[in-house]
Amino acid sequence: ISSFNMKYTLILFVFYSLQIDHFGFLEDGTFKQRYLVADQHWQQPGGPILFYTGNEGDITWFCNNTGFMWDIAEELGAMLVFAEHRYYGESLPFGQDSYSDSKHLNYLSSEQALADFAVLIQNLKSSSPGARQSPVIAVGGSYGGMLAAWFRMKYPNIVVGALAASAPIWQFPDMVPCGDFYKIVTQDFAKSGNNCDANIRKSWKAINNVSSTASGLQWLSEEFSLCAPLKSSIAAVGFKIWLQETWVNLAMVDYPYQANFLQPLPRWPIQVVCKFLVLDPGVSDYQLLHGVSQAVKVYYNYTGSSSCLNTSQTATGSLGLLGWFYQACTEMVMPMCTDGVHDMFEPEEWNLQAFSDECNAMFGVRPRADWAGTVYGAKDIASHSNIIFSNGGLDPWSAGGVTYNITDSLVSILIPDGAHHLDLRFSNDQDPPSVRAARALEVMYFREWIRQAKRPQTASAP
Amino acid sequence: ISSFNMKYTLILFVFYSLQIDHFGFLEDGTFKQRYLVADQHWQQPGGPILFYTGNEGDITWFCNNTGFMWDIAEELGAMLVFAEHRYYGESLPFGQDSYSDSKHLNYLSSEQALADFAVLIQNLKSSSPGARQSPVIAVGGSYGGMLAAWFRMKYPNIVVGALAASAPIWQFPDMVPCGDFYKIVTQDFAKSGNNCDANIRKSWKAINNVSSTASGLQWLSEEFSLCAPLKSSIAAVGFKIWLQETWVNLAMVDYPYQANFLQPLPRWPIQVVCKFLVLDPGVSDYQLLHGVSQAVKVYYNYTGSSSCLNTSQTATGSLGLLGWFYQACTEMVMPMCTDGVHDMFEPEEWNLQAFSDECNAMFGVRPRADWAGTVYGAKDIASHSNIIFSNGGLDPWSAGGVTYNITDSLVSILIPDGAHHLDLRFSNDQDPPSVRAARALEVMYFREWIRQAKRPQTASAP
Repeated sequence: ISSFNMKYTLILFVFYSLQIDHFGFLEDGTFKQRYLVADQHWQQPGGPILFYTGNEGDITWFCNNTGFMWDIAEELGAMLVFAEHRYYGESLPFGQDSYSDSKHLNYLSSEQALADFAVLIQNLKSSSPGARQSPVIAVGGSYGGMLAAWFRMKYPNIVVGALAASAPIWQFPDMVPCGDFYKIVTQDFAKSGNNCDANIRKSWKAINNVSSTASGLQWLSEEFSLCAPLKSSIAAVGFKIWLQETWVNLAMVDYPYQANFLQPLPRWPIQVVCKFLVLDPGVSDYQLLHGVSQAVKVYYNYTGSSSCLNTSQTATGSLGLLGWFYQACTEMVMPMCTDGVHDMFEPEEWNLQAFSDECNAMFGVRPRADWAGTVYGAKDIASHSNIIFSNGGLDPWSAGGVTYNITDSLVSILIPDGAHHLDLRFSNDQDPPSVRAARALEVMYFREWIRQAKRPQTASAP
Repeated sequence: ISSFNMKYTLILFVFYSLQIDHFGFLEDGTFKQRYLVADQHWQQPGGPILFYTGNEGDITWFCNNTGFMWDIAEELGAMLVFAEHRYYGESLPFGQDSYSDSKHLNYLSSEQALADFAVLIQNLKSSSPGARQSPVIAVGGSYGGMLAAWFRMKYPNIVVGALAASAPIWQFPDMVPCGDFYKIVTQDFAKSGNNCDANIRKSWKAINNVSSTASGLQWLSEEFSLCAPLKSSIAAVGFKIWLQETWVNLAMVDYPYQANFLQPLPRWPIQVVCKFLVLDPGVSDYQLLHGVSQAVKVYYNYTGSSSCLNTSQTATGSLGLLGWFYQACTEMVMPMCTDGVHDMFEPEEWNLQAFSDECNAMFGVRPRADWAGTVYGAKDIASHSNIIFSNGGLDPWSAGGVTYNITDSLVSILIPDGAHHLDLRFSNDQDPPSVRAARALEVMYFREWIRQAKRPQTASAP
């Protein structure tokens, strides 16, 4: 990562003024969107622009974790741009009031974000003479990857292609089975140690048992070094949700080398975690939960710097959780479910009505479950072009991803040993061959799109 | 047209509930959108659906004037659907308050209209078992044609192709010269009679001269049988605008047979009009304006039923002018200009600032001149597919149309003898061969798109 820091010094932080509402004219206010530019390798005029379609968090954090763009900038002679998504980081349409109520949150949507990116690129290109003919390629991971794919679908006039890494564009109602996500999490643990998934599956009942008494709650709180001790069996419900999210996060960041994405972690962290879960079937609830506590401390305290564990947070503070909840409560409705049989979690069905009621209580809005499918095409995307969907075999989000070729130019790249958008990270000596091959293929497609863009496109212009 | 009336009896008028705001969740209200369905020729299951993307007016009027769909329904085994555009006809989001202020007008936009069409079709298909596999083709003329093209661009998951008839998708800033529109109007008059364009060009100065005195104003009012006599030379400015719009409308409806689109008119109406304008260069202002008054009465009083001419209206009341003004004042910014040399009008430059100020005074909103180009691709639309752009050589709107093939599946069809979307009208014995050929080609493309849709689209589905 040191090479990154060197390059990083050359980044420009810029703010550009954008409409708060692209789709209505009553609200005519503007806000400052932040974007980062690194052009030290850019070959102008006409060199390509790699444009990161920022997701739900501080853009500097995504910039730090998208080394792939830095790694290939020089060979492509590319300018790098990282655009922050509205309502996250420092790109707040109404400043500190942006999250104050549903009125101020009303302009937080993927459509508005895509329009931001489009207007920003148009302006970048028209205000910089060397960029006027520059082909732009969208790059993004996770929700940012969904945005990259949708950006190419909706604004093919702005971007010549898109790399959508670990982008679950089909994790919407009636597109994929709701249980696949947690199945993949479970598989990751199953293959990383003996009985690892089985013991996690058993742990929920053990927590229920232990948390049923005051002394058990106290033991749990001490065993897990919780900053806020559990006071009731209702608190234990939140504790289990926190644990479940921890296992999910581990599946997302099960990288082949020491890294710090959601948390600082050792290489292949699930293998390290599972060492504490190789327990015999006859083990007591307390012994089992001792193993679990050792395991989660790999995730929360690998560096040894945490004095206690905070169950209100499971990952980096660079992510904008509240904003993402709002998006999930409006258009990003992603059904998830567990059955405790094909996965290692307590059974829970997907219940749209209950979810909608929660959203209404929290934000005063209700989700529109079918909208994302209507506006972004669901499974009917074959008429689009120039999108790479890369997915990691270890990544639970691959459940909602595009994992087969749709056409010659809507292609899937599978990285069996990859977790969440491993391909977007800096290259590393410990990278498995599959991710090296994926990156090479991605660059090959980039070159092809750039080549296409330099060719005249019209059949018979006047 | 009698055959139409017969078929017309089989039309269903339906209302469907749609979100007032597709792009925000604060406004969660719905409104009733009207659409018309004729399915007597529909071959279910799976027969195609021809979907008219309604424009700025009452949908029954467009339904009456889109005979092409009726003519081909049987041979294609197609269901016909005519969807009314929000804020027009009976599809008013806030009922009688829809136009009361900029707050209520805030949801009048092409993006919202396209989303309406998408949701409507999704619902139509899922609620009717025989329609689930039906390929849908968008058809529209003029602004409705722009919507048809944009619908295919933005929602290729919903429509397999689009016929965009006389759709000026490039009549936006910096895409085509602002003077081309009026040049074509002028050419239509130039070729329809001796001195026809020259005498109209001279008429403006004659009006200025005559209207400079009270007696001249009275003479003008009587000569033109105006319902509201002109009271001042300022009123003469409005009178000239009305005349200019009249010539434009005549150019749009210069059809080869007696028709009633904007007004009831004889066949080749400009030829009839120009008969009154074959005047010698030495003619007096009064003689010239007498000719002009005879000419415009062809347009306003062909049936002889008008007791006086109303300068506040130039066409059918089925068009929603106020709504269109609002759209022009927000995203549909279409620059027009005249120079009096290459056209027959008084010189007037395109002035965005003045236009914006007018919009602000009228609606409290200002146009965003670049937005349409950003969101709908401007000249960079080559990556889209399956759109026919048909244009008439007599139609001034062809100035902003796509009049050359962009790719093999983004094709232009030119109809040299055609005025405004002649191809969409019922076939007629007096149709020129060019429009017959155009319609045949259009049906051929429809068949090809339907064939494509029935083919599995995925290269390697799992």
